[in-house]
Parts: sequence; C-alpha cells; structure tokens
Amino acid sequence: MADAVTPGSTGRGHGTRRHPVVELFGPTIQGEGPDAGLPCLFVRLGGCDYRCTWCDSMHAVDPPTVRREARRLDESDIVAELRQRVSDSTGMLVVLSGGNPAMHELGPLVHRLHDSGMRVSVETQGSLWKDWLRDVDRLVVSPKPPSSGMATPENALQSSKFMSAATRPCPKRSDVYLKIVCFDSADVEFAFRFRERHRRADGSLLPLFLSSGTDAEAARPLPAVTDRFRWLCELVAGDPRAKDCKVLPQLHVIAWGHEKGR
Amino acid sequence: MADAVTPGSTGRGHGTRRHPVVELFGPTIQGEGPDAGLPCLFVRLGGCDYRCTWCDSMHAVDPPTVRREARRLDESDIVAELRQRVSDSTGMLVVLSGGNPAMHELGPLVHRLHDSGMRVSVETQGSLWKDWLRDVDRLVVSPKPPSSGMATPENALQSSKFMSAATRPCPKRSDVYLKIVCFDSADVEFAFRFRERHRRADGSLLPLFLSSGTDAEAARPLPAVTDRFRWLCELVAGDPRAKDCKVLPQLHVIAWGHEKGR
Repeated sequence: MADAVTPGSTGRGHGTRRHPVVELFGPTIQGEGPDAGLPCLFVRLGGCDYRCTWCDSMHAVDPPTVRREARRLDESDIVAELRQRVSDSTGMLVVLSGGNPAMHELGPLVHRLHDSGMRVSVETQGSLWKDWLRDVDRLVVSPKPPSSGMATPENALQSSKFMSAATRPCPKRSDVYLKIVCFDSADVEFAFRFRERHRRADGSLLPLFLSSGTDAEAARPLPAVTDRFRWLCELVAGDPRAKDCKVLPQLHVIAWGHEKGR
Repeated sequence: MADAVTPGSTGRGHGTRRHPVVELFGPTIQGEGPDAGLPCLFVRLGGCDYRCTWCDSMHAVDPPTVRREARRLDESDIVAELRQRVSDSTGMLVVLSGGNPAMHELGPLVHRLHDSGMRVSVETQGSLWKDWLRDVDRLVVSPKPPSSGMATPENALQSSKFMSAATRPCPKRSDVYLKIVCFDSADVEFAFRFRERHRRADGSLLPLFLSSGTDAEAARPLPAVTDRFRWLCELVAGDPRAKDCKVLPQLHVIAWGHEKGR
C-alpha cells in the first residue's frame, strides 16, 4: 500500500527521505486525545493500511487522491514550513497524523523537530510498529473499533504485536495513550476490552480517551457531533470501567466542522 | 452574604455542619478544566460572594432562590446520596462547586469523601481562602475576568491573598489549576496576566485552561458555544503564551445545553 501511494519515498532505505505531506497546517488546536485543547501544528501524511468505513481523512488514504494532493517534502522542508507558521516554535506541539504516519520512516523528522525545540505527538491506529515511535513525546494509539469495519482477527493480531512493543518501558517518551473513536455501544465495549488486554509492562492500565465519532457525511455536522457526544457521556458516565477515562467530542469539528486544514 | 443565604449552617463553629446543597447530580461528565471529560458526581453549594454578569448558576447565587431551593444536608447525607448514584464509587471524582464552595466549611465533607474512597475536586473563583482547600485532590481556581464585572481592584487584592496561600507547597494535593472563562480578548489578556503574576512557589507557571464562555441567555446555545470556541481557538492558537494552555468549550453545554442537573 505504501508503495502504491508513495513510490520510492517512504525512506525504507536511508537514501531518500521525502514524505507525502497531504496537509501541513496550524497553528490550530488539537481536537482529540490527551492533548485535546492544546495549540499545535499539524502534519498529515498520506497513505494508510486501513480503510475505515467512517474515515474522516480519506484524502490522506485514497491512493489516487494522495498521489494528486500530496507534496513530497523532506525533513528540512517540513521543519522550515512549520517554523514559519508561528512566531515562536520553541515548545510547540507538532502532531504527526495521517493516514497512518507509521507507514513512513519519520525518525529523522522527529529528531529534526526536537533539535528545533518542538515537541512531537504521533497518532496511529497501531497496526505497524516502527522503532522511531520510541522517540516521540506522545504516542497516541487509536485502534479501530468494530464500526470501522477494521476490527478483524488479523488486525487484532497486528495490534497485539504493536502494543507489546509500544508498552515496553521507554525512557524518552512520557506514556502511551489510547484514543478510541466510538460510534455505538459495541465500540465502547471494544475500547474497554482493548485497554484491559494491552496494559503497561507493570500491569497497570493505559490512559483511555473515548472520542465520540463524527459522521463525515452528516448534512448538519454540529447536531450530529453533539448528539453522539451526549449519548456517549450518558452511556459511560456511570460505568465503573470509565472512572479514569476521558470522554471527549472531536473539538476541531465543534470549532470548524469538516473544514480541511484546521 | 453567607449568613443571608445559609443562616446558622455554614459551620463556622463546629456544632452544625449542614450545607445548602442546591444540586447534587451525576454520574455525569466534568465539562471544564483539567478533568474535562472525566466521569464525576457533582455537588453544587448555594451562596456566592460574587455577582458575575454572565453567571450560569444564578440559582446557586441569588439568596432568595438558594433559600428556596437548597436542601440542608450534613456530610453523611451528602456522602450517602453520592454513593447511591453509582454502582461503585471508589475512585470516583466528586466536584464541589457553587456558587462559591469556599464560603462553607467543607473540610469534614472532604475527609468523609476520602474515607469513602472518592476523589475531590473544588472549583472556586479564589476570593476566599480556606485551609480545607489544602486537603482536596484538585483545586481549580477560576478567577473572574473583566467581562464578569468582578475584576475590581479589591477583588484582585483578594485573589492575590488566595493565590499566595493556594500556591504554597502542599503534599496532599496534586496541583493548582487555573480555569478562566473568556468572552472577549480583554478576558484572554487578563488570563495570561493572572497566570504570569500568580506562580508556583518555585516560580513556575500554573497550568491554565482557557474556557470559552457561554451566553446563559443565548436563544440557541449550541451555535453560540461553538462560535465563541472557534473565536478563542483562532485568537490564541498562535500566541506564544498559550503554547502549554488548553482551550476548551464547556463540554456539558455541548452535551446538554443549559439543562440543569447535568
């Protein structure tokens, strides 16, 4: 899949390090997960090994669209563009998202961002482990629940491999966070089960963020967002398994609807 | 003010410990601040020394309303009612809000809640210091910005006294958090200045949550909430002072509008 999307550019060797950047935007506000509400810069990389039914970033997934829309940028281009976007980038959070950013060899980019004083968060569904994921400040894993159509036994096996690498103690990174988008109660059960199964090395549970899903196709995104958020709050507020979980709507959709580049 | 609202019941002596509880509800989701998104139980106490123009809980502020609506409950009543509301209260977050809960002597209640295995968060504008505020798990101070009509020089002096007590190192409590509701850019400037001025004992800045205000009177609360959230995001996302701040809408309003008891 990666090859179809980004021929010769995923840097599997160490020769070429151009990456397919579908969107680079910000400053904006992180809409989900442990940093929800935090100002950030966003780099969306093209290419994905999943095809979620409700994907809200299909322009970063569909190979012809990615081929058409992605700019091939190397690490210096990306860092320079990000720095131009804010008056002071020191300490700023950069979110590497996709698609699945773990399809790419982003270790050198992460190091460059750190050298420039920025902090790096990665969002991935946790299907492909890469060692550079040990070097980021925040690793947000968003396994895809049944409503996505991607909760197959094969993907569960990949998730297990990923999580056992991700939960190995890692001195650099603060923690691993689970963010699971929920559209129905089966998704919520999946989320609690996933967290139960994939614990930290010391046996403790990972922080879990339940994110109420947004219908990318909804004619009126705002009521759809708030209705599902209310539903999720009412479903889990009294559930003992949720006592230390956070339930959040997708804040970027609340602020900007489905506008791209936000 | 406290006496007008709760004659003989604020427990200044240690004889009577009945508190004016205007609302006791949950399980719900905390809508603001460091625990935004977390399941919680809510206890809203009547009585307030402020009169914010945009107060969204006037039923907990206006003395005749408080006198009419508040139930006088002692610590055991409150703990028992909270425990009945969830199947397992161990580890559950209880939010003590108001009005201004610091008008009351809630130390014994906090201890009872801890004895029952619950965690306690307090939200107060930071106008009246009480030593029991050292015993809670989370202290969320929400100083009122200019748009409230309460940012007077006298109140600033009270805030300073409160913050110097609140920021004294405290082994029990995790941290002090600032949550400032913003309706306009003068409020945002107030928020950054307040944080700059009232630091931790070691000189470091406190965590700051910028909360976009909700017009309690808005005919259509939802667009009003999202419009002001977008405005706040766009105003501060690129501001170097906001790099480590979180910008959040009031999640309970997104889920439930102005419905009481949510």
